Amino acid sequence: MSSEFLEHVRRMRPVVHTITNYVTANDCANLLLAAGASPIMADAPEETAQIAAMADALVLNLGTLSASKKEAMLLAGKAAAAAGRPIVLDPVGVGASDFRRDAAGLLLAEARPTVIRGNRSEIRALLTGETGERGVDTADLPVHGAETAQKLARQTGAVVLQTGEIDIATDGERVLQIPGGSELLCLVTGAGCMLSALTGAFLAANPDQPLLAAAAAAETMSVCAEIAQKRLRTGEGNASFRTRLIDAMCSLTPEIFRKWRQEA
Amino acid sequence: MSSEFLEHVRRMRPVVHTITNYVTANDCANLLLAAGASPIMADAPEETAQIAAMADALVLNLGTLSASKKEAMLLAGKAAAAAGRPIVLDPVGVGASDFRRDAAGLLLAEARPTVIRGNRSEIRALLTGETGERGVDTADLPVHGAETAQKLARQTGAVVLQTGEIDIATDGERVLQIPGGSELLCLVTGAGCMLSALTGAFLAANPDQPLLAAAAAAETMSVCAEIAQKRLRTGEGNASFRTRLIDAMCSLTPEIFRKWRQEA
Amino acid sequence: MSSEFLEHVRRMRPVVHTITNYVTANDCANLLLAAGASPIMADAPEETAQIAAMADALVLNLGTLSASKKEAMLLAGKAAAAAGRPIVLDPVGVGASDFRRDAAGLLLAEARPTVIRGNRSEIRALLTGETGERGVDTADLPVHGAETAQKLARQTGAVVLQTGEIDIATDGERVLQIPGGSELLCLVTGAGCMLSALTGAFLAANPDQPLLAAAAAAETMSVCAEIAQKRLRTGEGNASFRTRLIDAMCSLTPEIFRKWRQEA
Repeated sequence: MSSEFLEHVRRMRPVVHTITNYVTANDCANLLLAAGASPIMADAPEETAQIAAMADALVLNLGTLSASKKEAMLLAGKAAAAAGRPIVLDPVGVGASDFRRDAAGLLLAEARPTVIRGNRSEIRALLTGETGERGVDTADLPVHGAETAQKLARQTGAVVLQTGEIDIATDGERVLQIPGGSELLCLVTGAGCMLSALTGAFLAANPDQPLLAAAAAAETMSVCAEIAQKRLRTGEGNASFRTRLIDAMCSLTPEIFRKWRQEA
Repeated sequence: MSSEFLEHVRRMRPVVHTITNYVTANDCANLLLAAGASPIMADAPEETAQIAAMADALVLNLGTLSASKKEAMLLAGKAAAAAGRPIVLDPVGVGASDFRRDAAGLLLAEARPTVIRGNRSEIRALLTGETGERGVDTADLPVHGAETAQKLARQTGAVVLQTGEIDIATDGERVLQIPGGSELLCLVTGAGCMLSALTGAFLAANPDQPLLAAAAAAETMSVCAEIAQKRLRTGEGNASFRTRLIDAMCSLTPEIFRKWRQEA
Repeated sequence: MSSEFLEHVRRMRPVVHTITNYVTANDCANLLLAAGASPIMADAPEETAQIAAMADALVLNLGTLSASKKEAMLLAGKAAAAAGRPIVLDPVGVGASDFRRDAAGLLLAEARPTVIRGNRSEIRALLTGETGERGVDTADLPVHGAETAQKLARQTGAVVLQTGEIDIATDGERVLQIPGGSELLCLVTGAGCMLSALTGAFLAANPDQPLLAAAAAAETMSVCAEIAQKRLRTGEGNASFRTRLIDAMCSLTPEIFRKWRQEA
C-alpha cells in the first residue's frame, strides 16, 4: 500500500517548497530528489508567497528559526492554504523556547497545516504550550501513548505524525501504528526533518488521503532506514548510515518495498 | 587542455569568496578544497566588500536569497569588479520569483559577472525576465539550442555556461560543447552550485581565457561525475554519488584526466 | 586519559547549544551525536539566551557571521556565563574582516569563553587585532611556537586550543602538545568547527579541568582522523574522509581509543 503512495510521488514529481533549517536542508533536498520529488528551498519573505503558490506542497520546519523565516513561513503558509496545497509543519525544538512555541502557534492558526510531524516531546509541547525542554530530541516520555497526538489532531484538525520508538499517525480518531525503522535514526541529525519533507511530497501526490499518505511516508522512511542499517559495514557509523539512508530511497522500487516488508 | 587549467588551480590555490545558499554551501566548500582552491564563505553586508577585495574570485549564488544576502552580493560584486577579480553569477531558480529576477538584474548591471552559470530554464528566465517557473531544475526545454545562451552572452558581455543534457559555454560568438557528464548529477542538489564555485576557481587561475576556463571547469566536473558514476556500487544512490563526485575531484590528476578522456 | 573524558561525555549526554555557520552545521551536529552529545542549533536573538541557559555548554562559531548572529551570540554568551556554563569561541576567519574581529573582541569581553579554539592564523589575529588574511585556513606561519597562544590565554583567561600541524592546548602557563591527527583534515571544511563543537561537549562533561578537557577533545578528534584515514580506500578523497571521520567518532570506545594509541 505504502509502495503505491511512493509510486504516485515518482510519477507526479511534485515540487516541494521547503522552508527549513540550515542544519539539515541539504539532506532534505537530496532525500526529496531520491524520492522523485523536486525540492525548492526559499525562505525570504519577499518570495515565499509566490513560490508556495506554485509549488505542490509546502513544508514548514522550525529549526534555526529566525524572525525573517517566521514571516516567510507565515506568508507561504497563507498562500499555500489559499491555493489548497498540503502543508506540513515540523515543530523542531518547539519546547525549547517561547519564540518557537509562539511561531508554531501562529502557523497552526494561520496556515492550518495538513500534517504536523514531530517527536513525542514536540507534540506534547505543542499541545501544552510548555517550554523548557533542554534539547531537540528529548526522549524521556512513555512510549505507547497516542492520546497526546490524538488530542492535538482534534484540536488542530491536522493529521499528527508522531515519531519515536514507535511511529504513529492519527487524525484524532483513527490511530495507525507504523512498524519497523532503525534506532540509528536517533544518531542522524535531520532524520525527522527528512521525514517531514518526504511527507510533503507524499501529500502532494496523494492529496485525498492525508492520514494514509503521512503513514506511508513514515513507513517508506522506516524501510529505507532498515535497508540502510542492513547495508552498514564494519566500522561505519551515523554518517555512513545517513548516506545509505538517502541511497536506499534513491533505489527503492515498489517491488523492493513489498519484498522487504514481506521478508521482515 | 582542461587538465592544464585544473593544474593551474592546484598550483595557485586561489581563495574563492563564495556567497551562496545554505543548502549546498558545504558541498561547494568541500569541492573547492578537493580542487585545490581555498573557499571562504561570508555573506554579511558588513564584511563582503572587504573579503571580496582580497579574494581571487567571487561567486554569487542566488539560492536561498535574502535581502541581506542581496546587499552583501552587491557590495562584494562592486568590490571584486573594482579589483579586477573574476565573478561568477549562478542565478539559481531565477525564474521562480520576482525577487530573484530583480536581484539577478541588479547584479548583472552592477557587478558585471565574468561568467553566468545556469541551467537552460535559468538562462532563459534571465534573458526574458519571465517568472513563474515551478522549480529550480525545470528541464522541459529543447536540448540543443544555444541561441538563448548566446543572446544572453551578447547582452551581458559575460561568458554563459549553460548546463543540461549537453553543457555549452559561449561568449556570444563561439559556442563550445562540453562532452560527457552523468545523468546522476540531476539527482544531487547543488551539482550546479558546485560547478559555479569551481568555475570561480578556474577563472582565478586562468584569468585571460574566461570562455576556455569556464568550459574547462565544466569538463572537469563532467569527468568527476563519470568517474563517480563508474565507482558506484550496487545499492548506492544519489548520496553516495555526491560523495564519490567530490572524492573524484580530490584525486583527479592531469594524468587521470587525460587518460579518462582518451578512453572515453 | 582522553578516553575517560570521552566516556564522561557519553555518560552525561550533554546538550550543546551551537551557534554556528551554515557551511558546516550539519557536520557539527552529526559529530556531536556520534560522540554521544545532543546538539541544539539555534541562532535567533529571540531565543538564544533561553536556550543557552538550559544547555550544558555553548559554542560560538564566527563562520558566516551576521549582525543577527552576533547579537544572538552575545545574548547566549551572557546567559551561559551567568549560568556558569562552559563556552567555546571559534574565531573562524577572524583575520579576514574587521566585522569578525570586532565581534570576536566583543564576545571575548562579554562572554569570557572557557576555551578559544582556532588555527594559528586565527589565534594570531585575535591577539594582534590585525585583519587582511586572505582565507580561513591560512597556514604560512611557523609551526612550533606556542608563545602566541600562551599570550592570548593569559590575556583572556581562556584555555587556547590551537590546531595545525601540531595541536597545542595552553592555559597560559602549561602547554600540552597533542600528538597525531591527519593531514586530510585540511581538506575537509569544518574540521575545526567540528572540533570546537566537540570541545563544548568535553567541557560540559569534564567541567573542572578545561585545559585537559580541551586537549582530550583534540586528541579524540586526532584519533578519529587517524582511524578515518586508515579506513580510506583507493579512489576515496576528502568527502569519504569526512564521512569516515564522523563514523569513527560514532564507534569509538575507550578500548578502541586506548588500543589505537598504544599501537600508534
